[in-house]
Amino acid sequence: MSTVIAVETSDVRFPTSRQLDGSDAMNPDPDYSAAYLRVVTDSGDGLEGHGFVFTIGRGNDVATAAITALTPYLLGRNAEGLLADMGATYRELINDSQLRWLGPEKGIMHMAIGAVINALWDLKAKRAGQPLWQLLAQMTPEELVDLVDFRYISDALSPDEALRILRDAVPGRAERTSTLLAEGYPAYTTTPGWLGYSDKKLTRLAREAVADGFKQIKLKVGGNLENDVRRLRAARTAVGPNIGIAVDANQRWGVAEAIEWMAHLAPFNIAWIEEPTSPDDILGHAAIARGVAPIPVATGEHVQNRVMFKQMLQADALQVLQIDAARVAGVNENVAILLLAAKFGVRVCPHAGGVGLCEAVQHLSMFDFVAVSGQKDDRMIEFVDHLHEHFVTPIHVHDGCYWPPLAPGGGSEMLPGVIETFGFPHGPVWSGHVAAEAVCA
Amino acid sequence: MSTVIAVETSDVRFPTSRQLDGSDAMNPDPDYSAAYLRVVTDSGDGLEGHGFVFTIGRGNDVATAAITALTPYLLGRNAEGLLADMGATYRELINDSQLRWLGPEKGIMHMAIGAVINALWDLKAKRAGQPLWQLLAQMTPEELVDLVDFRYISDALSPDEALRILRDAVPGRAERTSTLLAEGYPAYTTTPGWLGYSDKKLTRLAREAVADGFKQIKLKVGGNLENDVRRLRAARTAVGPNIGIAVDANQRWGVAEAIEWMAHLAPFNIAWIEEPTSPDDILGHAAIARGVAPIPVATGEHVQNRVMFKQMLQADALQVLQIDAARVAGVNENVAILLLAAKFGVRVCPHAGGVGLCEAVQHLSMFDFVAVSGQKDDRMIEFVDHLHEHFVTPIHVHDGCYWPPLAPGGGSEMLPGVIETFGFPHGPVWSGHVAAEAVCA
Repeated sequence: MSTVIAVETSDVRFPTSRQLDGSDAMNPDPDYSAAYLRVVTDSGDGLEGHGFVFTIGRGNDVATAAITALTPYLLGRNAEGLLADMGATYRELINDSQLRWLGPEKGIMHMAIGAVINALWDLKAKRAGQPLWQLLAQMTPEELVDLVDFRYISDALSPDEALRILRDAVPGRAERTSTLLAEGYPAYTTTPGWLGYSDKKLTRLAREAVADGFKQIKLKVGGNLENDVRRLRAARTAVGPNIGIAVDANQRWGVAEAIEWMAHLAPFNIAWIEEPTSPDDILGHAAIARGVAPIPVATGEHVQNRVMFKQMLQADALQVLQIDAARVAGVNENVAILLLAAKFGVRVCPHAGGVGLCEAVQHLSMFDFVAVSGQKDDRMIEFVDHLHEHFVTPIHVHDGCYWPPLAPGGGSEMLPGVIETFGFPHGPVWSGHVAAEAVCA
Repeated sequence: MSTVIAVETSDVRFPTSRQLDGSDAMNPDPDYSAAYLRVVTDSGDGLEGHGFVFTIGRGNDVATAAITALTPYLLGRNAEGLLADMGATYRELINDSQLRWLGPEKGIMHMAIGAVINALWDLKAKRAGQPLWQLLAQMTPEELVDLVDFRYISDALSPDEALRILRDAVPGRAERTSTLLAEGYPAYTTTPGWLGYSDKKLTRLAREAVADGFKQIKLKVGGNLENDVRRLRAARTAVGPNIGIAVDANQRWGVAEAIEWMAHLAPFNIAWIEEPTSPDDILGHAAIARGVAPIPVATGEHVQNRVMFKQMLQADALQVLQIDAARVAGVNENVAILLLAAKFGVRVCPHAGGVGLCEAVQHLSMFDFVAVSGQKDDRMIEFVDHLHEHFVTPIHVHDGCYWPPLAPGGGSEMLPGVIETFGFPHGPVWSGHVAAEAVCA
């Protein structure tokens, strides 16, 4: 038996804005950041749980404060008790009646709960000696259903329906695990498409993406229509007719504007339009989906919880569902969202990039393939080649695929020294003692 | 010309849980709290802007940190510049690209923006020597429309439609101002209905409410059906057949459960069912509204922004729209929501209670009556008789009405000494040096 003896929170920021990595129509100068959490026990095995909220700079201190506000739920608690019933642990956190007022189940406090839950899953997987995707994929359908809070989604997905989906997938688990290990999981890349890049850089990176085996790239749009058309033409010329090109407006438009703008981009054979408008606008997304058909609408990186995803599915507001490892309340809520997507037969193509999002979300897609939807060939995980060097178990992406992580844990642990170097505002990168270029390859 | 020279933030908490004031099915033991903000300039006139985020205890420190994260938008800025174009000031805050990631436009960071915006409106009204409702009601339709961000609502309300609504109301402004000053604005009371109160206390308070001139009371429900039926019977017996009784489930139910539960309460002639389920569930509210008709559905105190209200109206998900002064991004976003409600012809009955919510929200309803909807006799503002004694300009509620505040400002300024006494965790109420009973009447 072991006790949680320390919960360390850190404000870690990478000065990505200095090179316009990650620039888009709504986020011109992000500094990719993590409100980071380390859970330490007295077990003596040296294993820790790590998790984070991903932000893009300012406000990362507030997210860190939100995680700190949750530490009474961890400190002094029996670790085995917390980890043995992750459904109960998750429900305890989302149902704190006072903290709930700050959402409920949305925004900073909800993301902080996600960081805590993910850190506990990381610890649980390390203790099991398994990568998180495999740990989840070996749980029984009953154990998986118990992870979910059905209160606000049972009108769309009952516990019995969830059980049926999971039980139907049990016989194929072993075979799909072998397939996953042999084939990898498809990826697409956003690396060429940031709005701050020149056409020349875009063209070069798009060609490299094809050479690297990616079947789809993504371009940021929504800043200026003329530029978008020119950039799309350059990208299509670079990749040829058989590579998918998705576009991402990062919430730039209203409903009518989205439909009109997309009419101008449609000739370039668009794989999907991502975040055309506010992530809160379910009915707006549904109207846009009707207006831009047959181009699929994709969203999710800012969709706050399972209740919103439920309605997006009920309203046929999205055709590509983009889970994010660090937006909702962690693994538990993402299991609910994967089950909803399976129920509605909608494909899941996770949002990633940022800091550690690729490392974390791959586990969810691989679990989904093995134990929920059973699908992967119509899906792909976003890949952006930034900041992986800071993680203990960085992703392996090659030949256009994510290759299944085999190391124990959930993937979110940063290397020793990263927190010190990039800690805000006193780490050397921010206090001016080390040039960012020296540490950001 | 003056400059913002100080922005003071405070974590203020009232130990209301010790008496079960404010208890309901989801919030058994709230400590009503304010993440409080004071904006000080060097104008020499002694006028300050005050605003707050209302919370119910834990996490108030995180809300305070969120306000603190916004102080760079105020400190050192020209005050006249900030106040002269409140539309631009509001848009500057909600469009900070890095902070926006933390919502967008929801949760703690959004509420913190609301506190800042409301503090600036408080200062602007004090400088004008007018109560906020009057300041707003004397602005031109063009000035009012410029306060609104239409990006995500223009599919339901265009700037031209908003202008038309406001222009139609101009001719009647003077007459309605006189009517308001002569008649007051209708109130209803939740004081009898907290879940933690005994039937005896409920009956006594319900009778007192009627004697005090209220035409409607509200009871918390959703904890236990048998208890709800018994308490409703007691309340109906106490108030007689001609007083409205609304019920409030505080998000306790799923869709099917809400409809079923309400079938048992319907015989008591229910004025509205409030917050039957998650405030995020637009389609769920619409289904419940169809299922419990003709009982109206009310919601809003947790509805995060204008985009969600827009859809609630588009989907006919609510028949009573409950704005809250401190949930959305302040006066500006509430002007947008009032215009949406007017466009859809839905009545607005604000949420209040808590700490300072009554003091703040009355200005919005009175402005709405004078300059937007022109209606008040089908509407009422919630009244709870808690904690008003801590404010410089407490509400005047008697004869079942709110009486228009005449003092300059927006109502949210606390009395000197309150922050010190109730400051968390070092104020004497929390550090144990003063018994709460000695300071909470």
